[in-house]
Amino acid sequence: MSNDSSRYLPPEWTFAFHGHRCPFMPLGYRMGLVALDALGVDREADHTLHVICELGEGHPQTCLMDGIQAATGATFGKTLIEKTGWGKLAATFWYPGKIAVRYALKPQFLDEFGKREFFAFRKRGVEPSGIPANVTQEAIDWTLGQPDEAIFLTAQRPAFLYQPPKGSFNKSLCSQCGEYVFERYVRYQGGKPVCIPCSGYAR
Amino acid sequence: MSNDSSRYLPPEWTFAFHGHRCPFMPLGYRMGLVALDALGVDREADHTLHVICELGEGHPQTCLMDGIQAATGATFGKTLIEKTGWGKLAATFWYPGKIAVRYALKPQFLDEFGKREFFAFRKRGVEPSGIPANVTQEAIDWTLGQPDEAIFLTAQRPAFLYQPPKGSFNKSLCSQCGEYVFERYVRYQGGKPVCIPCSGYAR
Repeated sequence: MSNDSSRYLPPEWTFAFHGHRCPFMPLGYRMGLVALDALGVDREADHTLHVICELGEGHPQTCLMDGIQAATGATFGKTLIEKTGWGKLAATFWYPGKIAVRYALKPQFLDEFGKREFFAFRKRGVEPSGIPANVTQEAIDWTLGQPDEAIFLTAQRPAFLYQPPKGSFNKSLCSQCGEYVFERYVRYQGGKPVCIPCSGYAR
Repeated sequence: MSNDSSRYLPPEWTFAFHGHRCPFMPLGYRMGLVALDALGVDREADHTLHVICELGEGHPQTCLMDGIQAATGATFGKTLIEKTGWGKLAATFWYPGKIAVRYALKPQFLDEFGKREFFAFRKRGVEPSGIPANVTQEAIDWTLGQPDEAIFLTAQRPAFLYQPPKGSFNKSLCSQCGEYVFERYVRYQGGKPVCIPCSGYAR
C-alpha cells in the first residue's frame, strides 16, 4: 500500500462524470486504487473484475461508488458493480484466481471526518454542488492527508464466492410489444415469447 | 430533437471512464442527451433525476447504461440509476414535475446495426478492447449517421410513478462487528443494533 497522496487525487474527468465535487467520490477512487493494488490487477477494460458494494439507498456517502467505478473500471454499465443494500461503507473486490479483498471505512475515521465543515452543510440539506468550493476542498484535502491505515479496514476473503452470470447474445422479439428481449429474460404466455412487463409476471 | 451528430459523439473522458471503445456506450450517451432535451432539464449535478433502465445481466449491450450515466449525471454512485432485470434495451427518465419519458432501441435499428463487423467479433467472444480500432470506429460512425427517429422508440409516460427514498444521515454502530450502519438498514438482535450480515437475517 502506498501513501503517496497525489496518486489518490482523482483526475478531473472523474468529477465531470460524478457531477459535483465532494469528498466521498475521491475516497471511493482511493479505495478502488488500493484494491487493484491488493489484487495485483489493472483497471478493468472489459468484463472480469467484480465489485460488491455494501451500500444501500436513502443514505449519504454513496458517492463512494462513483469513485470505485472510476478507479477500477468495474462500471454499472458493464454490470461489474452491484450493491447489497446493507447501508455500510464497504466493498469487496473479486477477480478470478485472486483472493477477494474487502475494504471498509473505519468508524474512527468517519467520526473524525464527520467534524469537517462540509458535513455541517450536508446535514442542513445543502446539496454538494451548493457547498462553497473551499469547504469541499478542505474535506477532500483532509482525507488526502490521512494514511491508508487510518481510513480503511482491510480483510482478505479467501472463502468469498462469486459466480459471474453466463452470457448469451440470443434474443427474441416480444410477441406483444414487438421489442427485443435477451433470452434469459424471455417469458412464455399462450405458447409465445413475451417480455416480463408484457407478461404481467413479477419476474 | 436534434440530429447534429457531432453533439452525440461522447467526450473522450467518457471512454476513459467506460474502459474500452464500443458503440453501445455512445448510443447510451445519445439516449441520455435526447432524454434531457425531452425533459427540459440539465445534466444532474446532485440527486434529482432518476433513470430506470430495463436491462439485466448476462447479456450484451449493457454498456448503454454507462453512456446514460455519463450524459445525464444520473450515476450509480448517486443512486440515480437502476436496472429492472428485464433484458430490454430501454430506459425511462424521471424528473419531478415533468412527464417521464421512455426510450427504447428499435428492433429494426438493432437488426441493421447487428450486421456491422463489430458484432461478428463480439459473437466470437472477443472482448471490446481486443477488437481492431477501425472496426469499432466503423460501428460508432454508422450509428452517428442514423437520425434519432431511426434509433429510438419514444414514449411519454404521464402515469409513470417514482418515489425517491427518504434520506437520513443517522447511523449506528453494529454491536457485533463494530462497523457503522445507516439507520434504515439497522436490524435488532437481543435488543441491540446489528448490521444485516451480522444479523443473519436475509434482509
